[in-house]
Amino acid sequence: MKDVAALAGVGVKTVSRVVNGERYVSEETRTAVERAIVQLRFQRNTGAASLRHGSSATIGLIVEDIAEPFQSNFARAVEGLAIANGTLLFTASSSDNIDREREMALSLIARRVDGLIVIPSPFDHGFLQPELAAGLPIVFADRPPLGLVADSVTSDNRGGARAAVTHLIEQGCRRVVYIGDGEDIYTGAERLAGYRDALADADIPLDSDLVFLGHPDSARSEAALRTSFTGATQPTGLFTGNTLNTIATLRTAAYAEFLPAHVAFDDFELADLMARPLTVVAQDPAEMGRRAAGLLFDRLENGPGPHETVTLPTRLILRDSSRTAR
Amino acid sequence: MKDVAALAGVGVKTVSRVVNGERYVSEETRTAVERAIVQLRFQRNTGAASLRHGSSATIGLIVEDIAEPFQSNFARAVEGLAIANGTLLFTASSSDNIDREREMALSLIARRVDGLIVIPSPFDHGFLQPELAAGLPIVFADRPPLGLVADSVTSDNRGGARAAVTHLIEQGCRRVVYIGDGEDIYTGAERLAGYRDALADADIPLDSDLVFLGHPDSARSEAALRTSFTGATQPTGLFTGNTLNTIATLRTAAYAEFLPAHVAFDDFELADLMARPLTVVAQDPAEMGRRAAGLLFDRLENGPGPHETVTLPTRLILRDSSRTAR
Repeated sequence: MKDVAALAGVGVKTVSRVVNGERYVSEETRTAVERAIVQLRFQRNTGAASLRHGSSATIGLIVEDIAEPFQSNFARAVEGLAIANGTLLFTASSSDNIDREREMALSLIARRVDGLIVIPSPFDHGFLQPELAAGLPIVFADRPPLGLVADSVTSDNRGGARAAVTHLIEQGCRRVVYIGDGEDIYTGAERLAGYRDALADADIPLDSDLVFLGHPDSARSEAALRTSFTGATQPTGLFTGNTLNTIATLRTAAYAEFLPAHVAFDDFELADLMARPLTVVAQDPAEMGRRAAGLLFDRLENGPGPHETVTLPTRLILRDSSRTAR
Repeated sequence: MKDVAALAGVGVKTVSRVVNGERYVSEETRTAVERAIVQLRFQRNTGAASLRHGSSATIGLIVEDIAEPFQSNFARAVEGLAIANGTLLFTASSSDNIDREREMALSLIARRVDGLIVIPSPFDHGFLQPELAAGLPIVFADRPPLGLVADSVTSDNRGGARAAVTHLIEQGCRRVVYIGDGEDIYTGAERLAGYRDALADADIPLDSDLVFLGHPDSARSEAALRTSFTGATQPTGLFTGNTLNTIATLRTAAYAEFLPAHVAFDDFELADLMARPLTVVAQDPAEMGRRAAGLLFDRLENGPGPHETVTLPTRLILRDSSRTAR
């Protein structure tokens, strides 16, 4: 309110009069204050009515990469709900770059979007705290935000990874190689935790020599497989932690050579048409999009409420790659 | 101007006075006219300066389905140029439904986007003529618009299909089954023309019993293959006209049974990891996105010019599926 008053060149009391619809304010002053309110996206935090009042009928969606299949399917579902709510959708890819993400978010807010849905980069999102406090609904998806308490919709990454590795252990694989994202990425950390859970469940000690974390890269996968599968106590199982690491690994010569029993985290369109159809832990990106957008439109309709944390189940889909004769 | 006058409740002469910055117009009237102008997106067609003047620094992108890999890669490239130009991107999927597409386009225009990039549905786009005439840059991609003359960026669909079928003929396949989109879809018609070109080049008469056009569907593909490959003069080659038809066909029992020499239109991420790595005609969706966005920003910077029709080359990528011993 102080910022609005300063921008409009009036006192705080005058802003209050305008906002509360009181008389004794000149048309000129009223216009100046209203303009300042719009500029600063001032919102009295009094629930749905006032939130809808200044609606731009647009929402912003920030993903890491719209060309990545999981995220484009997620975006499609968000779009479906946006259309159903008479709302247009801004989309932007952050490339997991926090500077770009911040710039995108602030640009969208400056364009007065009614709300934001964000697949956050793995960095601090405290810069959004003032907007959240001012009543802008923000829903995070796929990963929760860092440095903020806010609504989020994620998959049960840990439970999914645990189910994948438990399945491999049940197939007789007591030594399972894990190739996945680093622990700096939320989903990477959760899936590693699920890998450990499954080993602990089966009383198998963790062998850190079998764990390979980092960016998806076929050379890295090749080295990982070759190191692990050459030696006295060879592993027989492989768990890849996300689609990009899965594909990088499928493309190695070592994979074709050793053909380990294999489960991948994340399903993809042609997983069943691979040379060896792939057993996967599937997330549901469309459901994640629907839930995230549903939560956002619920906030827009009904105003703020206690933060919600939605965790979606994953599903183990059995195909040929996890069968083993050993 | 008549619409502006009607909306503002003034005469056409008054609108003209406001637009030309003349005096003798009350502040109240000026405001009413300006508001109507904004609402109706009235633009005097005086080139770049006036176009840039009211810039909203947003552009609209309408695709058929943002979750389809070709289109999400296209969108990613458009987004890259938008960011480089300090512009935010609205995206919307039309589902190839003309009513929805029209609603999307008009909503975006009402939000005063600076320009539109559209992968058009196969219907008449004459409703955009007034906007084009008023100076709104619109670039069509993947398919040219119907009922409009406008900038477009497409692939050489006909040449690509011709190269695919010529390759199969050179491998010894004189009878080639074609499973593709119907001729009502631009790319479907062009690729069918390319299929015919290749046959004509090799003096092979067209056998319409080998041509199966329609929506991608595994049951349809199964029937097509089973009908064609059962009989006295069996074909040996197969050309599938787009990714969805390719995948529908790969999923049939008949495909695994007959294993024809096969070329598919459109590359996809895992084509090289299929049970039989797939020979494809590749388009370049990222380049298409860059060219379409480049054309749009050029129009925004430099004003209207003669319509441009950009045709991008395709590329035949040889893998195992087109090798044949027959």
